[in-house]
Amino acid sequence: MPEEKNYHMTAQQFRQYGRAVVDWIADYYEKIETFPVLSQVKPGEVRKTLAPKAPGKGEAFADILRDMDKVMPGITHWQSPNFFAYFPANASGPAILGDLLSSALGVQGMLWASSPACTEVETHVLDWLVSMLGLPEKFLSTSSGGGVIQDTASSASLCAMLAARERVTRYVSNRQGCRGGLVAYTSNQAHSSIEKAAMVSGIGLDNLRLIDVDGNFAMRPDLLARRIQEDREAGLVPFFVSATVGTTSSNALDPISSIGRTCQQHDIWFHVDAAMSGTAALCPEFRYVQQGVELADSYTFNPHKWMFTNFDCNCFYVANRKTLTDTLSILPEYLRNSATESGEVFDYRDWHIPLGRRFRSLKLWFVIRHYGVEGLQYHIRRHIAMAHQFAEWVKEDSRFELAAPVPLNLVCFRHRGGDESNQRLMERLNQSGALYITHTRLNDRFTLRFCVGQTNTEQRHVLNAWRRIQEEAAELK
Amino acid sequence: MPEEKNYHMTAQQFRQYGRAVVDWIADYYEKIETFPVLSQVKPGEVRKTLAPKAPGKGEAFADILRDMDKVMPGITHWQSPNFFAYFPANASGPAILGDLLSSALGVQGMLWASSPACTEVETHVLDWLVSMLGLPEKFLSTSSGGGVIQDTASSASLCAMLAARERVTRYVSNRQGCRGGLVAYTSNQAHSSIEKAAMVSGIGLDNLRLIDVDGNFAMRPDLLARRIQEDREAGLVPFFVSATVGTTSSNALDPISSIGRTCQQHDIWFHVDAAMSGTAALCPEFRYVQQGVELADSYTFNPHKWMFTNFDCNCFYVANRKTLTDTLSILPEYLRNSATESGEVFDYRDWHIPLGRRFRSLKLWFVIRHYGVEGLQYHIRRHIAMAHQFAEWVKEDSRFELAAPVPLNLVCFRHRGGDESNQRLMERLNQSGALYITHTRLNDRFTLRFCVGQTNTEQRHVLNAWRRIQEEAAELK
Repeated sequence: MPEEKNYHMTAQQFRQYGRAVVDWIADYYEKIETFPVLSQVKPGEVRKTLAPKAPGKGEAFADILRDMDKVMPGITHWQSPNFFAYFPANASGPAILGDLLSSALGVQGMLWASSPACTEVETHVLDWLVSMLGLPEKFLSTSSGGGVIQDTASSASLCAMLAARERVTRYVSNRQGCRGGLVAYTSNQAHSSIEKAAMVSGIGLDNLRLIDVDGNFAMRPDLLARRIQEDREAGLVPFFVSATVGTTSSNALDPISSIGRTCQQHDIWFHVDAAMSGTAALCPEFRYVQQGVELADSYTFNPHKWMFTNFDCNCFYVANRKTLTDTLSILPEYLRNSATESGEVFDYRDWHIPLGRRFRSLKLWFVIRHYGVEGLQYHIRRHIAMAHQFAEWVKEDSRFELAAPVPLNLVCFRHRGGDESNQRLMERLNQSGALYITHTRLNDRFTLRFCVGQTNTEQRHVLNAWRRIQEEAAELK
Repeated sequence: MPEEKNYHMTAQQFRQYGRAVVDWIADYYEKIETFPVLSQVKPGEVRKTLAPKAPGKGEAFADILRDMDKVMPGITHWQSPNFFAYFPANASGPAILGDLLSSALGVQGMLWASSPACTEVETHVLDWLVSMLGLPEKFLSTSSGGGVIQDTASSASLCAMLAARERVTRYVSNRQGCRGGLVAYTSNQAHSSIEKAAMVSGIGLDNLRLIDVDGNFAMRPDLLARRIQEDREAGLVPFFVSATVGTTSSNALDPISSIGRTCQQHDIWFHVDAAMSGTAALCPEFRYVQQGVELADSYTFNPHKWMFTNFDCNCFYVANRKTLTDTLSILPEYLRNSATESGEVFDYRDWHIPLGRRFRSLKLWFVIRHYGVEGLQYHIRRHIAMAHQFAEWVKEDSRFELAAPVPLNLVCFRHRGGDESNQRLMERLNQSGALYITHTRLNDRFTLRFCVGQTNTEQRHVLNAWRRIQEEAAELK
C-alpha cells in the first residue's frame, strides 16, 4: 500500500476556491460587454499559450484559475447581450447553480435504481413542460408517452428516426441490419442533423427526400404527399417525416397540421423539430406555430437554446415510449435490478444512445421555479418584440430589405448591394467586436441573420446593433 | 414592447446564491458518509413531494435550494467513499469548479470559429493525455489522428463503428444506406454499448459476433481469427473488432496485441474500449493492460469514471481523423466560415453525433493541473492496492472465493453458499445503507462486484465494507 497522502481538494478548500470561482463568474458577467463578442484569435493562438506537457506536480488553484486569462481571448461570448449569431445558447443564474449541484452530486441516472431522484425529477419537470407549452397529453409520462432530456436535438432526432425504423420493420432492422427500401422526408430547409441521422442510422442520404419549400421557406405539404405516393408506387417504404417549427436558416414554420395528416394517412412516423422556436409556445399567443403537434409521434425542443437553461438540455417527447425503449434497450446482467424488473420505473438509458447520464433536470427545475411561467413568458415576449422592432427598422431603411418573414425572434435581412456587400458588412461588424451576427443563403443569396435570444439582451443592445449596422453600411462602397 | 421588467438573477444575487450553493456542496461532502449510500426510496416517492404544476410566479432562490431536501432521499451517493458499485463515476473539487466555469461561459464549441478556446484547450489536453497514458503518437492531433471529448464510451464506440462502416464501404453506406454483408466482432463479455452501436448503425445484432472467452473472461483471439476466416469464406465482410481493456462484468483484459494483429492482417477497423481501466495506464507499471494499442484505429476511455473528472467526459482517439470526419461531416450554409474553409482548424461537430457541445475540457484541464501526473498516479495506485488488499481478505475467508482475476481495482467474488445466498447478502448490505455493491453473472453464477475507485475512498472504508460483508455473511442461513 503506498504511504498515506492526499492530493484531493478538501471541503474547506472547496469553500474558498468555490467562492473565488463564483466571484470570477459574477465579475465576468459584469464586464461581459467590454469583450469583443466574436473571438479575434487566429488558429493556434490559444494553444501556444498553454504548457506543452502536463505538469508532473500539482499546481495551486489560484494559478489554475489565473490561467483563465489565457483562455479568454479565445472565447466567443455566447452570453454577451450583443450576441445575435446562430441561434442562442442562453444561460441564467439559476441554471448555472442547478448545474453546479448536478456536477457536485455526481450521480449516474442510467437506471431509476442508480439514483431515483435523477429519473423522477426529470420525468416530473418534463411533464410540467407539456402543459407549459400546450403539448398533447399523450406526451405525458402518465399517458402512453413521456419525455427525456438528451444532449441535443441532433441526438433526439436520431432516436426518433431509429424508433421509426424499428416500428416499420417490426424490430427486424435492429437484429438483421438495414436492408434498404426505407425512405425518410424533411424539407430542404431542415437542420443538417436530419441528414446526419439518415447517415448514422443506416438509412442513407439518398433515401432522405428533401422536399421543396414555398416562398416562406416552409415545406410544401402537397409536394410531400406527392413524393410519398410516388415512392410507395415504386415499392419503397416511407417511414419517417421530420417537420420543423422554426428552421435554423430562416425560422420558417412547416405546416405541421397538414404534414401530420399525410403521415397519419400513410402510417408514417411524424417527428417535429422545434429546437429553438418550441420555447415560444410558452406564450399562448405563439402556440399557433406548432398547430397540429397533436399528430406527432415525437417532438423535440432545446431549453438550452432560448429558455435560459445552459447547454446541454434538449427535451425529447414520444407519444409511445414502448416503441422507443424497444428500439434502444439492451439489458446486461450487471444492470439488472428489481425496480427495472417490476416495470414500475423508467430507465432512461433506454431512451437514448448513451448509457451514463447526469442529473440535467436540476438546472431546468431551477430555471422554471426561479422565473415562474410568468417570468419566462415575459422574456420570450420581449425577445420577440425586440426582433420585430429590429425588422421594422430594416424595412424603414431603403438600403436594406427583409429576406424572410419574422414570425418570432430571428430577422433575416440583407443589404441591397449584393452578396459581396453583405459578406463584407458582416465581417466588418464581427471584427469590430461590438456584436456578432452570422449568415445563411436564402434563394441563393447571402443573407444576414439577426437572432434576439440572449438572456441579457435589452432594447439598448438591439438599438446599438442596428446603429452599428447602419454605420458600417454607410462605409460600404 | 412589454413594459420594462427583469426576472433575471443579478450578478450580485449570483454572488450571494453561488456562495450558498458552494457551502451546500461542501457541507454535503462533509456529511456524505451519514447518508445511506443506496437510496432507499420506492418508485414515485420523490415525485409525489414535488409541486404538481410549474409555478406561475417565480420563487425565492432560498426556497428552491431548500427543496433539495426533497431530492436527497432519492439520491444514490455515487460520491460516497462507501460506493463500490458498478464502475465509479468519480468527481473532484477542481473538476466541479472547472465545470462551473464551463456552465457560466456557456459557449458552443461546435466549430472552431464558434469559440476557438473550446476547441484548442480540448485538443491540447487530449494531446497531453496521449503521453500521460503512453498511447501511440498517431493519436496526437499533430499527427494524422487526434482526440475529442464525447459524452460516453457508448457514443464513442458508435462513432468508431460508423467510421469503420464508411471506410470499408468507401462511404457508400452514408449515401445509399446499409445493405447487409458487414460483420463486427467483440467478446461475449464486452459492454452492451457495442450491441447498441450495431443496432443504431444499421449493422444489426445478428451481424455482431460475440466471440467466446477464456477462463479469465478475455476474448480468445484464436476463435476470433477463425470466425473472421469463416465469415470471409461465406462471402461476408468483417469490418470492425472491438476489444476491451477491463470488461464491465469482471475487468477482463482482452489480448490487444494478438487481436490487433488479426485485424491488421484482414484490414479490419480495430477499436479498443478501455472505458474505466484506461486510467490505470497513467502508471507505467499498469500499462501492460493496453499492450498492442499501437495497432488500434480508435481508442476510448472515460476520465469521468476513474479520473476525478465529473460526468460527462469521455476521451475518444482516432489514428486517422479524416476517416472520422468524412463519416460524420455535413456542412450547411449557416455554419460555413473562413476558418473551416482554411482547413487549419478542427471543427469538433464532425467528430461525433451532436452538433452543439460545451467546454468540457476545462474540467479535465483543471483536474490534471490540480493533481499533477504524480497526484493522479498516487490515487490510482492506492485504489488498486486497496482492491488487492480486499481480494486478499476474500481469499483468506473460507466462506468466500474470488470469481475472476483482479488485475486492477475490481474484485469479483462470491459467497460459497450459492446464488441465493449471494443475492441475499448483496441486498442486505445495500439495504443497510453502509455501502453499495452490485453484481454480475460469471460462468452463470451470481457474482458480487466490489470496485474501488471513488475519489474519497480510504483504507478504512474498504476495511469497514469487508467487515460488514463478513457480518452479514455470518447471518446467512
